[in-house]
Amino acid sequence: MVDGHKAFGWAAKDKSGVLSPFHFSRRHEIVGIATKVGKNVTKFKEGDRVGVGVIIGSCQSCESCNQDLENYCSKLVFTYNSRSSDGTRNQGGYSDVIVVDHRFVLRFPDGLPSDAGAPLLCAGITVYSPMKYYGMTEDSGKHLGVSGLGGLGHIAVKIGKAFGLRVTVISRSSEKEREAIDRLGADAFLVTTDSQKMKDAVGTMDFIMDTVSAEHSLLPLFSLLNVNGKLVMLGLPEKPLELPIFPLVSGRKMVGGSQIGGMKETQEMLEFCAKHNIVSDIELIKMSDINSAMDRLARSDVRYRFVIDVANSLSPA
Amino acid sequence: MVDGHKAFGWAAKDKSGVLSPFHFSRRHEIVGIATKVGKNVTKFKEGDRVGVGVIIGSCQSCESCNQDLENYCSKLVFTYNSRSSDGTRNQGGYSDVIVVDHRFVLRFPDGLPSDAGAPLLCAGITVYSPMKYYGMTEDSGKHLGVSGLGGLGHIAVKIGKAFGLRVTVISRSSEKEREAIDRLGADAFLVTTDSQKMKDAVGTMDFIMDTVSAEHSLLPLFSLLNVNGKLVMLGLPEKPLELPIFPLVSGRKMVGGSQIGGMKETQEMLEFCAKHNIVSDIELIKMSDINSAMDRLARSDVRYRFVIDVANSLSPA
Repeated sequence: MVDGHKAFGWAAKDKSGVLSPFHFSRRHEIVGIATKVGKNVTKFKEGDRVGVGVIIGSCQSCESCNQDLENYCSKLVFTYNSRSSDGTRNQGGYSDVIVVDHRFVLRFPDGLPSDAGAPLLCAGITVYSPMKYYGMTEDSGKHLGVSGLGGLGHIAVKIGKAFGLRVTVISRSSEKEREAIDRLGADAFLVTTDSQKMKDAVGTMDFIMDTVSAEHSLLPLFSLLNVNGKLVMLGLPEKPLELPIFPLVSGRKMVGGSQIGGMKETQEMLEFCAKHNIVSDIELIKMSDINSAMDRLARSDVRYRFVIDVANSLSPA
Repeated sequence: MVDGHKAFGWAAKDKSGVLSPFHFSRRHEIVGIATKVGKNVTKFKEGDRVGVGVIIGSCQSCESCNQDLENYCSKLVFTYNSRSSDGTRNQGGYSDVIVVDHRFVLRFPDGLPSDAGAPLLCAGITVYSPMKYYGMTEDSGKHLGVSGLGGLGHIAVKIGKAFGLRVTVISRSSEKEREAIDRLGADAFLVTTDSQKMKDAVGTMDFIMDTVSAEHSLLPLFSLLNVNGKLVMLGLPEKPLELPIFPLVSGRKMVGGSQIGGMKETQEMLEFCAKHNIVSDIELIKMSDINSAMDRLARSDVRYRFVIDVANSLSPA
C-alpha cells in the first residue's frame, strides 16, 4: 500500500486513493505531502499538502454519514488504535506512512504551518464544532467560559475570540492567568478557589466548554451560567460526574457533549483557522524525544502539544 | 384585598388589579371567575373565567422578564408557599380567595373545562414549554419518549401527539401499557426491565422527557437516544444523578432542564390545549376529601391529578 519511494512520514491512500508521506504528526493529527493519488481521486494530486485527523473511515450510508456527521457514525474507524475493514490495526501518526481513503483526507490551507497547524485536526475541530452546534457563534458578544487551559482549552480561547465571543478562562489556580490573557487573548481569568470572584461571576456566562478530564464538580460551572446557559463537555472523565438537577431545571440550563466533527466541518475549520491565523502552541520534537515527551505529558508539562517532526527524524535509506 | 362579596374559591387582583373567586384548584393550578377587576386593568372584566398558575410575581425588569421568561426571573414569586412583596405567605389554591397581579392571570379559553383544565396551568406548561424550546415541534414525526406516566407524563403524551410526534411511554412495569396506548394515545410502550426490547430500541428516540423524581439511572435513557438526542429533565430528584460523559460526547447528546413557562407561553399553551381538546385526567374532590386524597397521593394512587371543587365545598354565608 505504501509507494515505492523511501518516503519519510506518513502516507495516505484510498481504495481509489491518496498516498502521501506526512511530515508532522501527533498520533491522529497528521500533516504531510501526498506522494501518490488513486486514479479515481480528483480532489487531490501528488505533492498536495494534506491532513488526516481522528477518523479514517465510516459506513458512508447511515443517517449521520448522510448529514456530514461521519464523526457520529456507529461504524467509525479511528486513525489510531482502531481496526480497518481489512482487520489491520491502525498505527495513526506513529507509523512512517499512512494510506487513507480520500474522503477522510483534508486539504491543508496555504496559510497554516504544518507543525503548529497539525493539532487543529483534533483539538481545533473538537472546540470548533460545538461552538457552531450549540449556537455560540450566532450572536457575537456572548460570554464563553473555558474550563481548563490545556490542548483543547487554549485553542478554544483562540477560536472563541475569532468568533467574537467574550472569553473567560476558568482554572483552579492563577498560574496561567498572564498567559491566558496576554498571550492567548482571553478577556478574563477566573480562579475557582476565589470564592468572592466566583460569587461575582454567578449567572454571567452564556456557554462553558469544560475540557477537564479529571473528576470534578459541575455545580460551580452551572452557577456561572445564566438562564438558558449551556455547558459543553469535551473532557472525558472515566467515571460519571454528579449531575445536580435543580440548577438545570430552574435556569433551563443544559449539559451536552460533542466529539470532533465531520469531514466537511473539519475542512471549514481549517480554512477558518488559516484566515484568522490560529494555530496550536506546540513543542516540535524528534522521534527520538518521544519517551521523554511522554514522561512530561504525564506531568502535564507541555504547552500545549508535542508535535513529532517525522520527516527529519528518520534516516534516509 | 378580598372583595366585599362572600365569594367562594379564590380571588385575584393587581395593584390595579383583578379580583376573582376560583372554582377549581390544586395548590397552584387555579381556575375561577373574576369577581372584581382593578380600575386600570383592561385585559379582564368581572365575570371572566380566568386561571392562575405556578407564579404570581416577578421583577418585571430583568433580562428574563423582558423576554417573557418570568418563570426564570430570580425574583420569582410562587403562588404557593412563597412570600409576596408585602411579606405575607401565599396560600395558593388552598385559600378561599386570591388576589393576583393581572399580569399573572390567564384568560381561560371557552373550550377548556375548569376542573380538568386547571392542572394544565402547571403540568401542561411544564411539558409544553420544553417541547417548543428544545425543538421537538419543529419537524413533525420525531420520536419522543416519555419516561414516567404520572401527572406530567400523561399530559406530555397528549401534547406530544397533538404536535405530531411519535410518542413512546417508557415505564418500569407494563401495568399502564393499555392505558397509555388505548386511552392516552401513545404509539408504543417500552418496559425498561425488558432487556431485549430495550436493546431493540437503542438509538431510536430523538427526545426523552424524564418526569421521574425518584433517584434513577440516566444511562438507559441516553442509550435510547439517537445522535443529537435530547433528554429533558422535568422531575426533581433531590440528590444529583449520575451523568455518564461518554454517551453525551460520542453521540452529541444533551441533558437539559425546564421549569414551567412564561405567562405569554402559558396563555399560548391554554389555547393550544383548548383547540386540541387536551385536558388532564382528574378526580374531582371536595375540600372534606383532602386528607384521604393526600394519603392516596403518598401511594401514587391517582390518575392523574386531584382537583378540589372549592366552590361546592364551602357553605354559603
